[in-house]
Amino acid sequence: MLAARDTGVAGDVSAETLIIKAAVAVMSEHGYHGTSVRDIADRADLSPASLYNHFASKQQILVAIMERGIDELLRRTREALDAVPEDDPAGRLRAIVEVHVLYHLEDQRGTQLGTSELRALEEPVREAHIAKRLRHQRIFESVVEDGVARGVFGTPYPADAGRAIVTMCTAVATWYRADGPLTREEICTRYQELALAAAGA
Amino acid sequence: MLAARDTGVAGDVSAETLIIKAAVAVMSEHGYHGTSVRDIADRADLSPASLYNHFASKQQILVAIMERGIDELLRRTREALDAVPEDDPAGRLRAIVEVHVLYHLEDQRGTQLGTSELRALEEPVREAHIAKRLRHQRIFESVVEDGVARGVFGTPYPADAGRAIVTMCTAVATWYRADGPLTREEICTRYQELALAAAGA
Repeated sequence: MLAARDTGVAGDVSAETLIIKAAVAVMSEHGYHGTSVRDIADRADLSPASLYNHFASKQQILVAIMERGIDELLRRTREALDAVPEDDPAGRLRAIVEVHVLYHLEDQRGTQLGTSELRALEEPVREAHIAKRLRHQRIFESVVEDGVARGVFGTPYPADAGRAIVTMCTAVATWYRADGPLTREEICTRYQELALAAAGA
Repeated sequence: MLAARDTGVAGDVSAETLIIKAAVAVMSEHGYHGTSVRDIADRADLSPASLYNHFASKQQILVAIMERGIDELLRRTREALDAVPEDDPAGRLRAIVEVHVLYHLEDQRGTQLGTSELRALEEPVREAHIAKRLRHQRIFESVVEDGVARGVFGTPYPADAGRAIVTMCTAVATWYRADGPLTREEICTRYQELALAAAGA
């Protein structure tokens, strides 16, 4: 595939996406530390030199995977929240659970790496990245807390419920199989109901 | 530590435990594929030759980590279930959630490896190991299903609720900090209540 090799121009978004996709695939099999830049370049059908036009190091590729992932998830979560009135906590919880479940079903390998290779992220990026993940988790906690304040949810542990909901939804990436009995939409609907139940709706 | 090096005798349980502990520590930092037998031997303060008296390969060490983990979890879960009468589904759910949460708080790094390095387990062990993990998950599903059948739980999705409960409890290993605001026992109590809520108790 010489055509792919020829796209090695700095700033080429589709080449970066191609490299990230290849990196997610290889790292999902061998882990960050078990993967070399050459492995990623080979999987992307690029020369290492072309890859280095886009990313300075394997660490920069990991940063791109992790940061793009959480940024996109935060963006979608906030957008979903904005679409539901503040006085409808159940609707707001349904909306953010839908985003979270669908995102993790869409990108099972990337989101699993986001958790398992957090350890491999170097400072100072790591600390900032963890802060973003925490901001995302806090959205769930505050939606549940708000629902309790409005008398719609009854859990005595709103923050714990928010975190438990996020983590049970994140885990869909670990067990979902496209050839399983449930569609993505069915899983989404069920997790919305389970989340509402956990919040004591 | 020559004393530790001197314990390199096949069948020495404490040396095996020492090696497994060292392997969990190193693999938690660098992943299975990023860890060598020498890294593990160094961390355990053993020579590679001594390590090979106990485990034939890095893969055999991973097998020991994973299999001992799930065997112990299954043993404790079944024991906890046996201690609660069958006509008390809420008590049974509380009991198995307690085992699951405490086990994952006790061995945060080992249980996280159990999930993140499942990919590194080779066949035929991998298939048998996944079957055991599924058996463990089915215990949660069947406790919830049984509670629904007895009219104690109201969830319309008992199997999904069982799985969601297992995964949210498993995730405590990823976020718990010993210096955090909650004790292990408090986390356990809260997760019991969240599990009962998710089951529609």
